[in-house]
Amino acid sequence: MKRILIIGIGAGNPEYVTMQAVNALNQVDVFFVMDKGEAKAKLIELRSEIIERYVKDRGYRIVETASPERGPDGANYVGAVEQLNRDKQDVFERLIADELADGECGAFLVWGDPSLYDSTMRIVGAIAQSGRHAFEYEVIPGISSVQALAAKHRVALNAIGKSVAITNGRGIAQGFPSGVDSVIVMLDVQNAFRQVIDEDVDIYWGAYVGTPDEIFVAGKLSEVADEVERKRAEARKKEGWIMDTYLLRRR
Amino acid sequence: MKRILIIGIGAGNPEYVTMQAVNALNQVDVFFVMDKGEAKAKLIELRSEIIERYVKDRGYRIVETASPERGPDGANYVGAVEQLNRDKQDVFERLIADELADGECGAFLVWGDPSLYDSTMRIVGAIAQSGRHAFEYEVIPGISSVQALAAKHRVALNAIGKSVAITNGRGIAQGFPSGVDSVIVMLDVQNAFRQVIDEDVDIYWGAYVGTPDEIFVAGKLSEVADEVERKRAEARKKEGWIMDTYLLRRR
Repeated sequence: MKRILIIGIGAGNPEYVTMQAVNALNQVDVFFVMDKGEAKAKLIELRSEIIERYVKDRGYRIVETASPERGPDGANYVGAVEQLNRDKQDVFERLIADELADGECGAFLVWGDPSLYDSTMRIVGAIAQSGRHAFEYEVIPGISSVQALAAKHRVALNAIGKSVAITNGRGIAQGFPSGVDSVIVMLDVQNAFRQVIDEDVDIYWGAYVGTPDEIFVAGKLSEVADEVERKRAEARKKEGWIMDTYLLRRR
Repeated sequence: MKRILIIGIGAGNPEYVTMQAVNALNQVDVFFVMDKGEAKAKLIELRSEIIERYVKDRGYRIVETASPERGPDGANYVGAVEQLNRDKQDVFERLIADELADGECGAFLVWGDPSLYDSTMRIVGAIAQSGRHAFEYEVIPGISSVQALAAKHRVALNAIGKSVAITNGRGIAQGFPSGVDSVIVMLDVQNAFRQVIDEDVDIYWGAYVGTPDEIFVAGKLSEVADEVERKRAEARKKEGWIMDTYLLRRR
């Protein structure tokens, strides 16, 4: 039987890795590394650092593959992601079939936590369900960028007894959700917080959280929105990519 | 200067502890342990196990204090929690003033992640802001029960491109929130999922997640609600306490 581990390695800081993940890393025969986009070099470097730091006295192989790219999505974001996931599934199936021998353990290392805005679990689950390949798989949770952000700002995600929404740039662009005091926004590529700037909310923003390049801004949204936008643009220009997230909280 | 660390130790499994938390545990002179409720013995045992397993070659003190109890809240849940937090603040202030010497490092160990439905950060922040005690403080994120639940069920918290709500029993009792496909429910003491049983949703439920006693149920809510309620009641009777959480997802 083949085994697959989907390992959450936390959001940037190699110290966010859990003991469970360290033990998992030390069972792996083959690490599957998917390259993608502009963040590529930096992220692969961090991933290599984690493997080198925590894997002890054990041989392993690293198989690098180009990650399929998402096509232009236009009005159909979900459709574009689903197509991307099918393309990824083809790649994953080939990796499992050709690069992993019976009895071996393969691993996908996932930034942050595999349960939040990441498709690895969904894709591996679809392959398992297809019945085309015999393997067991297991998921290891990791510290998400949301938790790292909250810890650094020393702010709770929820107001006392209240609900929290987790959404993306497209979600917050449609307005501050009803029924919640707190909104966590991930994957906002277009400063969508501008769309709710008239709300009486604080923003707790962070980019590259957990890495040596981390940047933070906090304050009343209407007062610091320009600063966030400027720092975001500067950082993206300097680094060539950006990975940021923020919490909006009604005052 | 005194130092306070608020350390997320993860949701039950000692292996959920991060390397950052291990390093933090090894800087601590005084662990502040708050006892509470029926879960007391089991939770304190797990906490001791974490301290003993990960603290190496270093002397430390453990200061145990009874945790203030929440009064009957009636219609005013937030008011009751705020009063509880003021009571806790008094206890924390006394601990920081009397049990921690200048230059020493004290720690509060928090189950799961300190950023989600936990008041430690809020209380320590209020003490810092009061100016009555001079200390620095830092927060270390941990694996929450929500992430542990998702990993064990091997299910993503969000549907593709969609938002997620995090709420409590009181929140879900008011109905399935609008604008989301996925709802994570924590602190539900009264099987509030019954209130949304007519919705076309799946439930992914787990209790004591991460511990040897963990229990899981998954399926269409209307079909497995009885099973969840029964297993919940049996476990609570057997253990004397329950710690559970669940994800509801539109089919």
